[in-house]
Amino acid sequence: MRKNNSLRFGIDLGGTTAKLAVVTPQNKILLEGSVSSSGSPSPNVLAQKIARESLQMMIGKKISSIGVGVAGDIDFHRGIIRVSPNLGWKNVPLKSLLQKKLGRPVIVDNDANVAAWGIYKTQVSSTVKNMLVVTLGTGVGGGIILDGEIFRGSTGSAGEIGHMTMVENGRRCNCGNRGCLETIAGGTHIVALVKEHLKKGVKSSLQSLYRLNSVNITPRAVAIAAEKGDGFAKKIWNDVGHFLGVAMGNYIYLNNPEVICFTGGVAQARGLVTKPLLKTLKTRAFKTPISAARIMVAKEAAHIGVVGAALL
Amino acid sequence: MRKNNSLRFGIDLGGTTAKLAVVTPQNKILLEGSVSSSGSPSPNVLAQKIARESLQMMIGKKISSIGVGVAGDIDFHRGIIRVSPNLGWKNVPLKSLLQKKLGRPVIVDNDANVAAWGIYKTQVSSTVKNMLVVTLGTGVGGGIILDGEIFRGSTGSAGEIGHMTMVENGRRCNCGNRGCLETIAGGTHIVALVKEHLKKGVKSSLQSLYRLNSVNITPRAVAIAAEKGDGFAKKIWNDVGHFLGVAMGNYIYLNNPEVICFTGGVAQARGLVTKPLLKTLKTRAFKTPISAARIMVAKEAAHIGVVGAALL
Repeated sequence: MRKNNSLRFGIDLGGTTAKLAVVTPQNKILLEGSVSSSGSPSPNVLAQKIARESLQMMIGKKISSIGVGVAGDIDFHRGIIRVSPNLGWKNVPLKSLLQKKLGRPVIVDNDANVAAWGIYKTQVSSTVKNMLVVTLGTGVGGGIILDGEIFRGSTGSAGEIGHMTMVENGRRCNCGNRGCLETIAGGTHIVALVKEHLKKGVKSSLQSLYRLNSVNITPRAVAIAAEKGDGFAKKIWNDVGHFLGVAMGNYIYLNNPEVICFTGGVAQARGLVTKPLLKTLKTRAFKTPISAARIMVAKEAAHIGVVGAALL
Repeated sequence: MRKNNSLRFGIDLGGTTAKLAVVTPQNKILLEGSVSSSGSPSPNVLAQKIARESLQMMIGKKISSIGVGVAGDIDFHRGIIRVSPNLGWKNVPLKSLLQKKLGRPVIVDNDANVAAWGIYKTQVSSTVKNMLVVTLGTGVGGGIILDGEIFRGSTGSAGEIGHMTMVENGRRCNCGNRGCLETIAGGTHIVALVKEHLKKGVKSSLQSLYRLNSVNITPRAVAIAAEKGDGFAKKIWNDVGHFLGVAMGNYIYLNNPEVICFTGGVAQARGLVTKPLLKTLKTRAFKTPISAARIMVAKEAAHIGVVGAALL
């Protein structure tokens, strides 16, 4: 007989899909499902769809907790989505909406916190208590673990590392400001910068791909080119790694973590990012906190969001 | 009869003087003393002098705790001064040295943490749990309060906000790196920058003071000139405030505090610093954490270090 009295349920609510999963006490996915969330659905309609599918998946299982991760500005304590650009939502009381429809308590948190929590609980030694997870995807997000718990700050807004200003009057960011870390290390910006250079005729093995169809230019394509020795592509990654090194140096000076872990698509460039990052970190003057911070790249885990949500 | 069973003893160990004080349960100084610490004394000799004076001051009083603040890189848990440039010390086990000579437990912490703690305990509502104190003196230091406690990080190095990189390839900092916040907002650097401009003949009411004796150029003199409408001096403070705004914006995005409090000599320029700082903060895109952070300047308190040490 399987003891299933501590099964957990996770919901990873993105702008195109809501991933659902029943997660075992061993943090494995027992059952998964999904619901489309594209086309800016009304909160009520989407909550209804998610609840219907979730209740179906829960039949015959004792679920001890339900967690939801959502991209956006979340009021964690009240479970309200203040703003979610991906879903086109403002001031949505998602926690109470889902609780009503699911008939049990629900926890709602920011997707970066949820991913950080998932990685923390499944990929890092439990002796680690102070950690930063940086999500390098199309944008750049952060989740902070302090004292073994998600650190949310006074309004649930902590960890917004992607929007630290790195370059005064730098590139325009989606947030409206300029020179945010995201404008240097976010996938969308890396691709835009590479395309600008390719358009101007920079010498690179990526030119043929680009001329075929500019859609071919992805962080992965730039990483492959760099690995094959393309000088232009290597320079791009060196810059990304260097500025991430500056940003992580600043973070280390502030919060003195034991581990900084990168995850997300852009982080799959791995050594292309971490080598220049570590080189920059080594130039920082205060050696004690810098050498105390281990830099790692998370194992690729497509389901880390939904597992992290379940473990909230 | 005065109940004195919770008197505390504080030691603020600087590079020229060690201030000593007996502090009441109301956080007032009952008795103070001092010992010279200049001329790079040997740890043992200085500890002996401090202990002799301290024991003298403690006669007839029940002291419940002894705290010490020291500028430098401190291993809080073991009470070891890893490096203190001001004292010229490396790897000094100050806690055990003083404990032996004083015959009771001693807590040793970084001076920025101690000042932060003193301000937190004496000038801020106890409902505040998440706060940053920035010391704007000759250099720039930081002390972080999280969850109502000093946050020290994994090696006791947290809060080193003065050495966040603000300007790539900026001015050379004492730490060896370039463009640290301290090279923009530290008193020594403000004065150096002002003198450079005055030397080059910039138009300013400070020229006459400077020509009389360059030693006259202090942060206070630059503040007085700005208050009297000197355009050059105003520009200097606007730049200081702006970059502090960028740095505080980054801090707020990371740790989402309720309060940021400035203290130290340079902070006495008050509105000259906080106005441009707030102007820059207002341009930051994410309004929730920015508007949640109250910016304040601490009351002038010459004894905040020794009081903070006593309250450790």
